[in-house]
Amino acid sequence: MLLQVLGTAAGGGIPQWNCACPGCSGARAHCSRRRRHASLAVRTDEGRWYLVNATPDIGDQIEAHPVLHPGPGPRRTPVAGVVLTDAELDHTLGIWRLREARGLEILATPPVRRALDERLRLSEALTPYTDLTWRELECRGARPLDPAGPASGLRISAVPVSGKRPRYAAGAPAHEAWVVALRLYDPAAGTCALYAPAVAEWSEELHRAAAEADCVIVDGTFWDDEEPRRTGISTRTATGMGHLPVDGPRGTAAVLATLSARCLYTHLNNTNPLVDPAAPQHKRLARLGVEVADDGMVIEL
Amino acid sequence: MLLQVLGTAAGGGIPQWNCACPGCSGARAHCSRRRRHASLAVRTDEGRWYLVNATPDIGDQIEAHPVLHPGPGPRRTPVAGVVLTDAELDHTLGIWRLREARGLEILATPPVRRALDERLRLSEALTPYTDLTWRELECRGARPLDPAGPASGLRISAVPVSGKRPRYAAGAPAHEAWVVALRLYDPAAGTCALYAPAVAEWSEELHRAAAEADCVIVDGTFWDDEEPRRTGISTRTATGMGHLPVDGPRGTAAVLATLSARCLYTHLNNTNPLVDPAAPQHKRLARLGVEVADDGMVIEL
Repeated sequence: MLLQVLGTAAGGGIPQWNCACPGCSGARAHCSRRRRHASLAVRTDEGRWYLVNATPDIGDQIEAHPVLHPGPGPRRTPVAGVVLTDAELDHTLGIWRLREARGLEILATPPVRRALDERLRLSEALTPYTDLTWRELECRGARPLDPAGPASGLRISAVPVSGKRPRYAAGAPAHEAWVVALRLYDPAAGTCALYAPAVAEWSEELHRAAAEADCVIVDGTFWDDEEPRRTGISTRTATGMGHLPVDGPRGTAAVLATLSARCLYTHLNNTNPLVDPAAPQHKRLARLGVEVADDGMVIEL
Repeated sequence: MLLQVLGTAAGGGIPQWNCACPGCSGARAHCSRRRRHASLAVRTDEGRWYLVNATPDIGDQIEAHPVLHPGPGPRRTPVAGVVLTDAELDHTLGIWRLREARGLEILATPPVRRALDERLRLSEALTPYTDLTWRELECRGARPLDPAGPASGLRISAVPVSGKRPRYAAGAPAHEAWVVALRLYDPAAGTCALYAPAVAEWSEELHRAAAEADCVIVDGTFWDDEEPRRTGISTRTATGMGHLPVDGPRGTAAVLATLSARCLYTHLNNTNPLVDPAAPQHKRLARLGVEVADDGMVIEL
């Protein structure tokens, strides 16, 4: 299994266009600290990739990685489709950018698809431009990620991790699968990856999936639960915003330290001290054997 | 008057994520040939700017220009608002990216606002994130561009240039102001700029506005009328797609050559030979005294 990390930042990216906090200012001063919106490309066959989430950065994420470049035909692209972990604008706006494709597959859970179609009119708006094909991203039962790929190819299933709706769909009905983690299984290699850029609760089901995985890439939005209140970006705690913090009694770092998988944090908010490479928090994680994912990282399992 | 050119490419940018045509491949091989989606920033006061169109590149366009960076307060931004020349996705998707702002003003003609609100649900989707304020962009009668700017500040009016609707709003009612050129007038300096990234017809009214301007930045999407058919990107001609070509009997180059204004082309498509700096077409334009705008160019009038 081949995973290409395309971005590792939470909503807004780092730096965020209207933010002069230390994390964003640091990224303006040192371009190596820039992080694009959290995203991943997953190879399903030679020259065929699915994107996990379609961020507003999608055009530049594709340009930054030659394996995703088009060719040799003038309009042939290795981007076969998009898998959505939720319906947040920062994970879906990029779909509109892909409308120049001949066709595009989107895998999403039912509430995510409904939010995009009913609240943002995605299918209606894009049908005049391209052929959209929706496929249901199913919780629990693993299915082939790429129907056109090899029979022995990657299989995907979802694990519900939060019932949090995007703000633009606040009035939509409750559903367990508003936010999911993705479980990618490679039958040929016998390896498994878990991608969970937003985790509101560390459920038993999620723990089982993490315990079985060889690689876990997980929500590192906030370092601690008070960070959003302390930095003034919200009146809620991290957990209240749908993101388990890294550190502290409800934090994920202690749990990840017990897993045998390679564990990496992604989806870092600009307020997270981890965005500064000199922050002492990096040593804390290193001692636990946990990493921070970087834009451009390649993971082979 | 101070204008900052943020981008100079037609829809998709150069390179476009799924395109391996010579123009896009050339831009992948030579990063100086990259062009972001056509956009402009207009200064209305010290540290206060309006963006002309909100492209999908908007985050990176802001990052690329320190005058648009936030600060000194943690969430203070010099970006005061957005003026739309039409409702095309490539000129409007960036609005969703600006939702982290405390508030945002959008100037648009009535059909453009209706398309965004009724077809794409813009206001409904973004109201939970920020305070959107719509102002009507009026044809003919010049009004202050920035109500919070100095009384002697820039004035703006629009000139209808096309009734072409975006594909996602194909069924919407006809209106003369689906696509407009912007006329910016600086009473303090007595100078005038005309920005027209899409021109379907060179009307008498547009010609009058161009003749009065000190600087004209105009639709250079296609070099000649047959280009879209010859390159296989469309079954229609340039004119049929709502863009007067640069060259030929219906082309704009000959008209621009008669004007006293400084004239520049923008909104170049990836099929346009002008995207190659070695193309002989550059000499043709130079002989006519007409320029091709570049990303990052500053124009002071």
